[in-house]
Amino acid sequence: MYTLNPPTRILMGPGPSDVHPQVLKAMATPLIGHLDPKFLEIMNEVMDLLRATFQTDNKLTVAMSGTGSAGMETVFVNLVEPGDKVVIGVNGLFGERMVDVAERCGAEVIRVEAPWGEIIEPDAIEKVLKANTNIKLVAIVHAETSTGALQPLAEISRVVHEHEALFVVDAVTSLGGIEVGIDKHQVDACYSGTQKCISAPPGLSPVTFSPRALAVMSKRKSKVQSWYLDLSMIQNYWGKERFYHHTAPITMSYAIREALRLVVQEEGLQQTFKRHWTLGQSLQKGLVAMGLTLHVKEGQRLPQLTSVLIPEGVDDLAVRKSLLEQFGLEIGGGLGQLKGKVWRIGLMGHSCQPRNVVLFLTALEQLLTLQGAKIERGAAVAAAMKAMGQEEASILPKV
Amino acid sequence: MYTLNPPTRILMGPGPSDVHPQVLKAMATPLIGHLDPKFLEIMNEVMDLLRATFQTDNKLTVAMSGTGSAGMETVFVNLVEPGDKVVIGVNGLFGERMVDVAERCGAEVIRVEAPWGEIIEPDAIEKVLKANTNIKLVAIVHAETSTGALQPLAEISRVVHEHEALFVVDAVTSLGGIEVGIDKHQVDACYSGTQKCISAPPGLSPVTFSPRALAVMSKRKSKVQSWYLDLSMIQNYWGKERFYHHTAPITMSYAIREALRLVVQEEGLQQTFKRHWTLGQSLQKGLVAMGLTLHVKEGQRLPQLTSVLIPEGVDDLAVRKSLLEQFGLEIGGGLGQLKGKVWRIGLMGHSCQPRNVVLFLTALEQLLTLQGAKIERGAAVAAAMKAMGQEEASILPKV
Repeated sequence: MYTLNPPTRILMGPGPSDVHPQVLKAMATPLIGHLDPKFLEIMNEVMDLLRATFQTDNKLTVAMSGTGSAGMETVFVNLVEPGDKVVIGVNGLFGERMVDVAERCGAEVIRVEAPWGEIIEPDAIEKVLKANTNIKLVAIVHAETSTGALQPLAEISRVVHEHEALFVVDAVTSLGGIEVGIDKHQVDACYSGTQKCISAPPGLSPVTFSPRALAVMSKRKSKVQSWYLDLSMIQNYWGKERFYHHTAPITMSYAIREALRLVVQEEGLQQTFKRHWTLGQSLQKGLVAMGLTLHVKEGQRLPQLTSVLIPEGVDDLAVRKSLLEQFGLEIGGGLGQLKGKVWRIGLMGHSCQPRNVVLFLTALEQLLTLQGAKIERGAAVAAAMKAMGQEEASILPKV
Repeated sequence: MYTLNPPTRILMGPGPSDVHPQVLKAMATPLIGHLDPKFLEIMNEVMDLLRATFQTDNKLTVAMSGTGSAGMETVFVNLVEPGDKVVIGVNGLFGERMVDVAERCGAEVIRVEAPWGEIIEPDAIEKVLKANTNIKLVAIVHAETSTGALQPLAEISRVVHEHEALFVVDAVTSLGGIEVGIDKHQVDACYSGTQKCISAPPGLSPVTFSPRALAVMSKRKSKVQSWYLDLSMIQNYWGKERFYHHTAPITMSYAIREALRLVVQEEGLQQTFKRHWTLGQSLQKGLVAMGLTLHVKEGQRLPQLTSVLIPEGVDDLAVRKSLLEQFGLEIGGGLGQLKGKVWRIGLMGHSCQPRNVVLFLTALEQLLTLQGAKIERGAAVAAAMKAMGQEEASILPKV
């Protein structure tokens, strides 16, 4: 077996995204111990940077030692006790996953459903909250990675708090790409991942909990069913006490610190959002100009993840294989009920660059033409450039 | 906030250990996707290398996406159902932790205790197995990181299988440092960490399950309480089906592949064991020659982790602080009931080098002399060198 030598990809799938060279360099840094005074400083810095990215003052804002799904499990095992009633918005795979996770915690789950690709309407949530008593929490997915739908938070938050439930948000694919606004939207518990718009490798899950959520946790009658994810112990390691719980993933902590520093301090959160917004629009206008149909309707689309219908007669796997092998471009296929029906194209974090939009549209146009699909040739890149604020035959904007 | 620039340490605590430069370099490799055909190859390579290190043919031999404690939880959530009777050997902190984890799974735990620093006797296990029916599993810690005791496996395994229970072993600190011998010792479930003798950063937990354990899992009546650690799904991602479960920690997978390649293919498992054994002996003889007392009795000591009593009147924290600040050397303090009573000195993986033994003994001698401790001066390094097979004033052995 030889030394590792993987191919060089451009990651435009639903995550992981390309990792910035500065973050890769940070990961080659020799380790210090997980109780070293300097590492405790680094943990403090990570907490500060996470608070800035989550847009919150929540004290309990830490990175869990697992991928985004471990963050989902963290929220449910710590907030839910057997028999609790919870409402979950299901409009994609990750809503489904929340139901599964919550049920394993003994929750009685009330589903509020919408077709995959649409959003959950506040009215539907309100109806359930009015028809039931003692709902402990309401959970929705901010950015459905399986569909590309962008769920508005403000109105649902208002309804949830009116009924004195906790508001839980899955921000795995939104954090760092669009505004999450934890405090502004009065989100009580939120989890995310590192491998989407933050552009660190997968392996940590940022979470944040409001004082309301902490109060609920402190009144638990039963032990948290997961030792590994039990925040009553973990907050003592991240807090002043610094009690050893488990060995923190040192190198991943280096990575998230550097990745967040690039987002919050070097580029700035608002500029990062603007870049995602502009290039997401650009990609979407390019795809439409090519004659393709986007799966999510206008006004509800994520900029950082676009789902587009695979034109009739086109071989899903063959196109993705060619993109990967001939262009080194990774995009995502459909998940669950969208398998074989859509492609999912990510423009997340360091992958979100003008040249990637241009290369992808050009490559896709070539491959669809080869497959005999009826598309508009030559229009996509021009439309995309225009949406970036550039004329055709001009140069790409600086990033 | 500036770019990351932590101090350069020599990690001689209970883990993490120093990471080999080749592994650090591997972690700076740009990412590929978690469903990329090349990444699936890397996963296969990791499984092969793990099987070689665990010394097993077990098909289900994978790296869980969390640190060693997540591996512990993986074993218990997948094997235990509410009401199951399990026997756990408790002779240190990690035995205690297993009890806590098992109880959170609804297990009825029967403890078999020994003083911290001693081993669990097979007779004590046998007595419990004879006195109880329907014991589902017996779990012990192979290398107690909190005490430095080395638990023999063979005789307990025989007793456990005679009573038709599963044999579970915590190999967090043993894997890659001493023989674990999963197949030889008929271990049914075993978990480990990456940051000890394998010398990758913390962040993954290698686990392996025997066909007997798989059969027990396949007969579960209840869902595994953790979605994140549910092997019924995870084995479909690592297996031929390649079903997406959660996003694998790509960079940590690069790290474990390279770290295991260094152990299994470059140095060789037997030579690695020999290096740990020789240098562990060397350190222990050096400490004794200095006049210090080891916490674990001879014949039951781990080579890769040595616990030594802090001499009377010596300031625990002051010595560790000076080791860290003046020499860049990290060692561990005592945990739980051994807090303030012992130091724990690791010689694990890439940290297990002759020059580290010599530097540590020399530094400790200086600091204990400063503190007015009654020690034998000048004897430690000579004794340590002799145990390496070298005469005093000779050169260090090549590693």
